[in-house]
Amino acid sequence: MGIPAIDLTDPAVYRHWTTDTIRFSDQDAAGHTNNVAIAAYCETGRVAYAYQVLLPDKQAGESFILARITIDYRRESRWPGTLRIGTAPVRLGSTSVTLGTGVFNDDRCIATAEAIVVFRQDGKPAALPERIRARLADRG
Amino acid sequence: MGIPAIDLTDPAVYRHWTTDTIRFSDQDAAGHTNNVAIAAYCETGRVAYAYQVLLPDKQAGESFILARITIDYRRESRWPGTLRIGTAPVRLGSTSVTLGTGVFNDDRCIATAEAIVVFRQDGKPAALPERIRARLADRG
Amino acid sequence: MGIPAIDLTDPAVYRHWTTDTIRFSDQDAAGHTNNVAIAAYCETGRVAYAYQVLLPDKQAGESFILARITIDYRRESRWPGTLRIGTAPVRLGSTSVTLGTGVFNDDRCIATAEAIVVFRQDGKPAALPERIRARLADRG
Amino acid sequence: MGIPAIDLTDPAVYRHWTTDTIRFSDQDAAGHTNNVAIAAYCETGRVAYAYQVLLPDKQAGESFILARITIDYRRESRWPGTLRIGTAPVRLGSTSVTLGTGVFNDDRCIATAEAIVVFRQDGKPAALPERIRARLADRG
Repeated sequence: MGIPAIDLTDPAVYRHWTTDTIRFSDQDAAGHTNNVAIAAYCETGRVAYAYQVLLPDKQAGESFILARITIDYRRESRWPGTLRIGTAPVRLGSTSVTLGTGVFNDDRCIATAEAIVVFRQDGKPAALPERIRARLADRG
Repeated sequence: MGIPAIDLTDPAVYRHWTTDTIRFSDQDAAGHTNNVAIAAYCETGRVAYAYQVLLPDKQAGESFILARITIDYRRESRWPGTLRIGTAPVRLGSTSVTLGTGVFNDDRCIATAEAIVVFRQDGKPAALPERIRARLADRG
Repeated sequence: MGIPAIDLTDPAVYRHWTTDTIRFSDQDAAGHTNNVAIAAYCETGRVAYAYQVLLPDKQAGESFILARITIDYRRESRWPGTLRIGTAPVRLGSTSVTLGTGVFNDDRCIATAEAIVVFRQDGKPAALPERIRARLADRG
Repeated sequence: MGIPAIDLTDPAVYRHWTTDTIRFSDQDAAGHTNNVAIAAYCETGRVAYAYQVLLPDKQAGESFILARITIDYRRESRWPGTLRIGTAPVRLGSTSVTLGTGVFNDDRCIATAEAIVVFRQDGKPAALPERIRARLADRG
């Protein structure tokens, strides 16, 4: 993915925040939060961002689909706990946006992610509409 | 739920079988398969039964919804492993069927369940159609 | 399970509360929160109760294990949302406690559950210690 | 992650295979298998590989931990279905191995992944033991 220009472990990077709850069943036999659960935490941030920033004014036939995600596992976490999840745009393509995610347990960053979400019109990749580009620029 | 007339731990009870796979992430911090994953195994059997026996000839507006489930956890299980899941009707109501489930890891029954699924027409409980009653009787 | 003497859909029944977050991935193809995710919400309440009320003073070799759960699905719920989960003891056995659970989305009760958890000493069922009985009576 | 020298969508790449089952609850409100479930499928392959090839002769204090994963979502998949998951080493570091994964539904590749797993001795990154390097070379 290359080295991101911004440090996704730094909470100051994010203007969009949401929360999630560590579940007992998120832990695996190693006694810490499983990598699959951490993928769910990243989705919690990303989907909230998609509904609130990318497509709050969704038109018929418009959608975003996840094409690629890279998750860096940075620290162990355990039940119980509440998570704060920050999401920010880190790169714009012609038909896609790369969203950065930081998952924080108290002040500790337990994981970061970069996800490429592709804009689709009627199920096919399409140029990012100007209104979405404007909102992303405004939140850059 | 009362004492079922049939012994759900006995594989001979079931004519409908499906399989599932124990996942590493199904285990929790206690090092065994978590009770929530076992609810998923029961769903694996129940939903296959619903599509193949209850509503293979689904008409517009018809559906079944899960109203109640009782799961008895009988033995610990661990990753890795393949499960065989048996499903059988155990009771017929006017608008519902109670489905019995047995989850088997090799020859060991790790859990049984009774689930009440309610027939709905256009989102409202409705009398079980005769064609479904006939199929259930045939598989009794 | 018989008809519970207390109405588990009534928030006034509960003195112990915890929270959970509805995840996007908790929803299934029917577009509502899946029954398996609801089993996880019930666990969120039950495990917090176990650590805070049943065994805050856990001694070596002591544990509780889930033997049976009955979940009543009462209303549909959807992402996004925050849940409040109440837990209360509803019945005492010689070696077990039945815990009642109510899962609330805003003020709507989406599910209730009764779970039988068995006390174990060194892996075998054992009489509920007097100190645990006293705490449960105190919270009755 | 750079462009892998090998095509992870090609089943011929893999000598290690395991299976998993698509669960009804793996689907999300969009009616296809959710990205979080696909992370679980990748883990199914990776953990089996870890137990069978990386550490079948695990010594005290030895472990592997997942540091980073990149998943490429390639095609939609739906319940029901059985998955074949291939795993192969794609790169060796001084303390880590990058494992490639291909998830196949019938003959369609639904996702590929590259996961960096770090060898640890007593909880700290350590040089990959020669016996593990030899096994990986043997399976290259």
